[in-house]
Amino acid sequence: MYREEIQVLDCTIRDGGLIHQYQFSDDFVKACYRAACEAGVDIMELGKKLAVSEQYSRDTWGKWNFCDDDDIKMVIDSYDGEYRPLIAVMYDVGRVDVASLQPADQSPVDMIRTACYVADIDKGIDLAKRTKDLGYQTTINIMAPTAAIKTDLIEGLEQINVVEEVEHLYLVDSYGALYSEQVSDYLKLYREHAPDKDLGFHGHNNQQLAFANTQQAIIDGVNLLDATINGIGRGAGNCNLELLLNFLKNPKFDVRPIYRVIQEEFVPLRRQIEWGYNDAYGISGCLNQHPRAAMKLRGDKERAGLCYDFYLESAGLGEGGLD
Amino acid sequence: MYREEIQVLDCTIRDGGLIHQYQFSDDFVKACYRAACEAGVDIMELGKKLAVSEQYSRDTWGKWNFCDDDDIKMVIDSYDGEYRPLIAVMYDVGRVDVASLQPADQSPVDMIRTACYVADIDKGIDLAKRTKDLGYQTTINIMAPTAAIKTDLIEGLEQINVVEEVEHLYLVDSYGALYSEQVSDYLKLYREHAPDKDLGFHGHNNQQLAFANTQQAIIDGVNLLDATINGIGRGAGNCNLELLLNFLKNPKFDVRPIYRVIQEEFVPLRRQIEWGYNDAYGISGCLNQHPRAAMKLRGDKERAGLCYDFYLESAGLGEGGLD
Repeated sequence: MYREEIQVLDCTIRDGGLIHQYQFSDDFVKACYRAACEAGVDIMELGKKLAVSEQYSRDTWGKWNFCDDDDIKMVIDSYDGEYRPLIAVMYDVGRVDVASLQPADQSPVDMIRTACYVADIDKGIDLAKRTKDLGYQTTINIMAPTAAIKTDLIEGLEQINVVEEVEHLYLVDSYGALYSEQVSDYLKLYREHAPDKDLGFHGHNNQQLAFANTQQAIIDGVNLLDATINGIGRGAGNCNLELLLNFLKNPKFDVRPIYRVIQEEFVPLRRQIEWGYNDAYGISGCLNQHPRAAMKLRGDKERAGLCYDFYLESAGLGEGGLD
Repeated sequence: MYREEIQVLDCTIRDGGLIHQYQFSDDFVKACYRAACEAGVDIMELGKKLAVSEQYSRDTWGKWNFCDDDDIKMVIDSYDGEYRPLIAVMYDVGRVDVASLQPADQSPVDMIRTACYVADIDKGIDLAKRTKDLGYQTTINIMAPTAAIKTDLIEGLEQINVVEEVEHLYLVDSYGALYSEQVSDYLKLYREHAPDKDLGFHGHNNQQLAFANTQQAIIDGVNLLDATINGIGRGAGNCNLELLLNFLKNPKFDVRPIYRVIQEEFVPLRRQIEWGYNDAYGISGCLNQHPRAAMKLRGDKERAGLCYDFYLESAGLGEGGLD
């Protein structure tokens, strides 16, 4: 598949950091940045940009939850090649401080992606406007749309459509619940009610479909695609960047630096933290449920293998009738 | 997705046994059979039916490489429920002994699936004819069609089409090389040149696409679908039966016995043998190569993580130029 307009956004650090509160070493982040540069990735998201508070300290939550400009510069300056991806960070509605944001021309950040649930789309639009006013490229990533009531989602899409400060609008399969044909259905809905926005797609791998669904999004005309090195990411993880680059065949991309950083950094990391598909994520995905219960099960050494019990409980088929 | 005609063939034992020369315990096979019965699976393939020889002894190669009627009866008789799937076994061209085969009405086997490469389609047709003459249901599973020269494949399809003893014809993605849109292309080719045959699909998970490609086959009208419990199978494994049953939604299926046997039998088995997606399978899949090199890498504890080296070597990008 080759289409010139396609852009790949590597959210390895941002989504991968959700596994262990952004406890990546600086060397690891630098190695990922170098790989993204050498691979020709279009945009790299280095983390979240939350407001530091007593509750959310840098020590406990990790520097990539806050993405200070100095930390980003430290990573960027570690590489001396020519090609650089744009740098993105993520805003979570209700947990950021726009007042402390520098104008884009004084920051190493190029793009701010605002994540919000359907209920908070007004707040998301407000943040997108304010970040655009400061000169950043903007996206709104509507989280968990598969859990929203359709009329609410449509209302939100129509609101977003008329706000010119929102440049990209993401279909996010937060629960890894979508089959490919449903990706098409949702994209049709997004196009119908937000026809003026460029669409992006962000998948999760609960049912081993993140890569397949990203291909479906491409077939349906989406040009902004999220992926992570080795599929690292919350829960079942994301679309594997290396598989996606193999598929895209665009000569601007080179998959070799991605396999190199996997070999050198991710293989050792896999001995420390765990991500990717398992039975419980498959269950939460097919039931369109938040993966938090599956994540809890994975973290419980005694119970991690009890997928049958987990299925009964999750599907409401345990003791007693449906409730 | 609900379509009455869809049939699911569980090849857990046959494809899973390729990992460790069919060293499953009898209790494990009985538990899988019970799960297949209770889940309402249509057909269960219990192994290969090779000819015993000095080179291929039952002790070394495992009883499910040979599928003696008595072994199959031992499994069937261990379960006392009412519903039973049809029993299938696989014939490998060049390694079987038709002369020793009982007529179907004296055997617990209902279906014989003949596997052959494109070069051996004549031999495959001969076996299918002879097994059909003995009363068995028949399939031909053309292995590695993605590695065949297209004119050879077309010739083979046209030969198969005129043989009425062949009932089902399988598209087999032996290398896990196909993207969904290519599954559609191949199915179109199979339909064009073998319009009189019912089609089946058998995927491999090298690029995390076995389940997605099986869905694509369904969308394209294929009604005979292979899957294995927990995706167990050679190399990167197969389409996960539990994910497929979740997708199909047909009330004749019940996914709970599958999750139960995973919890009770497969979780312990995963501590002994390994299967499923890894970096090297992703590479062999996207390069349309036999997974044997990736399987060798996985088996080499020292080198298993060297996916970058493996990529360079597999893609012909190592020392020296393309050759």
